[in-house]
Amino acid sequence: MNDAEVVTSEAPPGEQGLVEWRDFVCEEPFRCDDGGELPGFTLRYETYGRLNDARDNAILICHALSGDHHAAGVHNLSDKKPGWWNSMIGPGKPFDTNRFFVICSNCLGGCQGSTGPSSTNHSTGRPYNLDFPLVSIRDIVRAQKRLADHLGLASLYAVAGGSMGGMQVLQWMIDYPEYVQRVLPMATTARQSAQAIAFNEVGRSAIMQDPHWKGGDYERGAGPNVGLAVARMMAHITYLSEEGMEDKFGRARRARPGEEARKLFDVEFEVESYLRYQGASFVNRFDANTYLYFTKALDRFDLYAGGPLEEAFGCVQARTLVVGFTSDWLFTPQQNREIVHALLRQGKDATYAEVKMSLGHDSFLVQAPELEELVRGFLD
Amino acid sequence: MNDAEVVTSEAPPGEQGLVEWRDFVCEEPFRCDDGGELPGFTLRYETYGRLNDARDNAILICHALSGDHHAAGVHNLSDKKPGWWNSMIGPGKPFDTNRFFVICSNCLGGCQGSTGPSSTNHSTGRPYNLDFPLVSIRDIVRAQKRLADHLGLASLYAVAGGSMGGMQVLQWMIDYPEYVQRVLPMATTARQSAQAIAFNEVGRSAIMQDPHWKGGDYERGAGPNVGLAVARMMAHITYLSEEGMEDKFGRARRARPGEEARKLFDVEFEVESYLRYQGASFVNRFDANTYLYFTKALDRFDLYAGGPLEEAFGCVQARTLVVGFTSDWLFTPQQNREIVHALLRQGKDATYAEVKMSLGHDSFLVQAPELEELVRGFLD
Repeated sequence: MNDAEVVTSEAPPGEQGLVEWRDFVCEEPFRCDDGGELPGFTLRYETYGRLNDARDNAILICHALSGDHHAAGVHNLSDKKPGWWNSMIGPGKPFDTNRFFVICSNCLGGCQGSTGPSSTNHSTGRPYNLDFPLVSIRDIVRAQKRLADHLGLASLYAVAGGSMGGMQVLQWMIDYPEYVQRVLPMATTARQSAQAIAFNEVGRSAIMQDPHWKGGDYERGAGPNVGLAVARMMAHITYLSEEGMEDKFGRARRARPGEEARKLFDVEFEVESYLRYQGASFVNRFDANTYLYFTKALDRFDLYAGGPLEEAFGCVQARTLVVGFTSDWLFTPQQNREIVHALLRQGKDATYAEVKMSLGHDSFLVQAPELEELVRGFLD
Repeated sequence: MNDAEVVTSEAPPGEQGLVEWRDFVCEEPFRCDDGGELPGFTLRYETYGRLNDARDNAILICHALSGDHHAAGVHNLSDKKPGWWNSMIGPGKPFDTNRFFVICSNCLGGCQGSTGPSSTNHSTGRPYNLDFPLVSIRDIVRAQKRLADHLGLASLYAVAGGSMGGMQVLQWMIDYPEYVQRVLPMATTARQSAQAIAFNEVGRSAIMQDPHWKGGDYERGAGPNVGLAVARMMAHITYLSEEGMEDKFGRARRARPGEEARKLFDVEFEVESYLRYQGASFVNRFDANTYLYFTKALDRFDLYAGGPLEEAFGCVQARTLVVGFTSDWLFTPQQNREIVHALLRQGKDATYAEVKMSLGHDSFLVQAPELEELVRGFLD
């Protein structure tokens, strides 16, 4: 008996399919890689499709830094924005819910329902804030494994995700080699580069130097919104590409503002307006401390830490398809290719596909027939 | 009779040559492109070498966003850091002061001695701050022309500079076609890209959202240091390259900090420490309002505004060598190449050289034999 059967008692979501989230509450203690301990944790998750009798048709989707468990469908019919990978998940879509039982959970450390820095520390009755233990990508994956066990899965047919989600995919195939049949890491890296660490550090600085951060002890709703918005604006540039921004915005101007507005360095170009909107809307849905914790988890991710990359992959059994995107300069095609080369040097079943798209790192989130066909074929 | 003869009455500076700055005070009104007017202005400048009797051996060096008039030599013998292009300017160096009279001035709008937002508005007795008129690259160049006239130059043997300096070089050859013999724009662009505008907008947001900015009316020494440091940290990443940062820092760690330090997201990687240092030291030498004004001048620079780029170059007479750098992703090789292609389509004497360096946009500031030989040959 598992929760999933309840969730999936109705028809799988179509294009406008209604979905519900639910919470998995794990009451067993959880020790983090870095030494910190949680007395237990909650993971918020959604499922799409139906688990088969053999319990072997489950696909786990791992979300990126600012993503969450809401990967497909809508929560109600007035909901204008479906889940973040709605183009990929659903009946007849690449992650075909007529065939697969698809799961996505908000990561441990998150701020969308899973236990994270903004959750209540029951030993104090107050939010953890910086008392929350540092979580690693491996911790995030271990918590997901407990969810998979709770759901009674016999194995994972596949694990897929882009960016930070791709790191989780890599960790899954290393830590649970017999459990995972196929992996689909996209737009990711086996280790965070110096440049990527640098961008994250600027974002963290913007947050921590905001006077409203208060060493992490801000009140809900009164946090370092300015710093978080600046961090997001900057990060958002790294998710796009020079070419993509040129195509989308170029040097297009807003209506020419009056003298006073110009003097105040108000928005002049469309791209400025777009970025300010990205920053302002992000603070409404994301917690600044989670941003610190997740960027730190990214920065510490390093599958080369123990030696050559192929050594990390010694026990891998999953078939692997890594997908890189030509215009991704955050986690470059080269970084994606290296993963496959290391697997091949170990004699593993691995292949690399590079999708030509001009939208930069976020290409994996954009509906694209080529990506859809690659995923469809790989899951066949 | 001109000031320069006084300055250069001593021997030209050698590797440790002593140099002095001086101020050119222009008391004639100056109307800016954007409509604002100054009753006059000061440009702080340095010269190296000696103006010849024909007054035709002068080379103007244009500085980048965070540069200044101190391009070569030292101000006193205990000065550990020579001018920013000391490797290029001096006796026997590419800009050979045995042969040329080299000039560099702090740009109009700057904060290193030239009139800018932090200067006193004599009509109020207080700093201009945001009452300072918006200055364009063309305004900066027109102010430099007044300095050139003041120095009694017959013509400019060459104008050279990188990044924002390169934009000034392009403006010089367009606005004063008969005055300029040779131009050497480097690591620059004929129009600011959407991505470059976006990065500048994040920097400006970081400054303007710092509560110490106070709408631009901060007291000297009590300005938006946090916002300016964040802006500089981010911009600094764009001046480097992924490869350059990987080579220089990789994932090298500082001594592993204690539990408390880690929890507070203190510096962990060398690259973080480097960036924080860059941010912290920048606020000691740069004014936040000038940062706003200069980045706006960059963002508005667009030689395509009137149509195809070659139309902007119709009247150009100068010989042109544009130098791009392979790893520059801020002002890409492609953007540099386009300048030359447009000049060639107009039948002008123009050529492009691409220098293979891994240090990114800032490559033009780094001592490199290949660049030195290119400049030397072009000035011959």
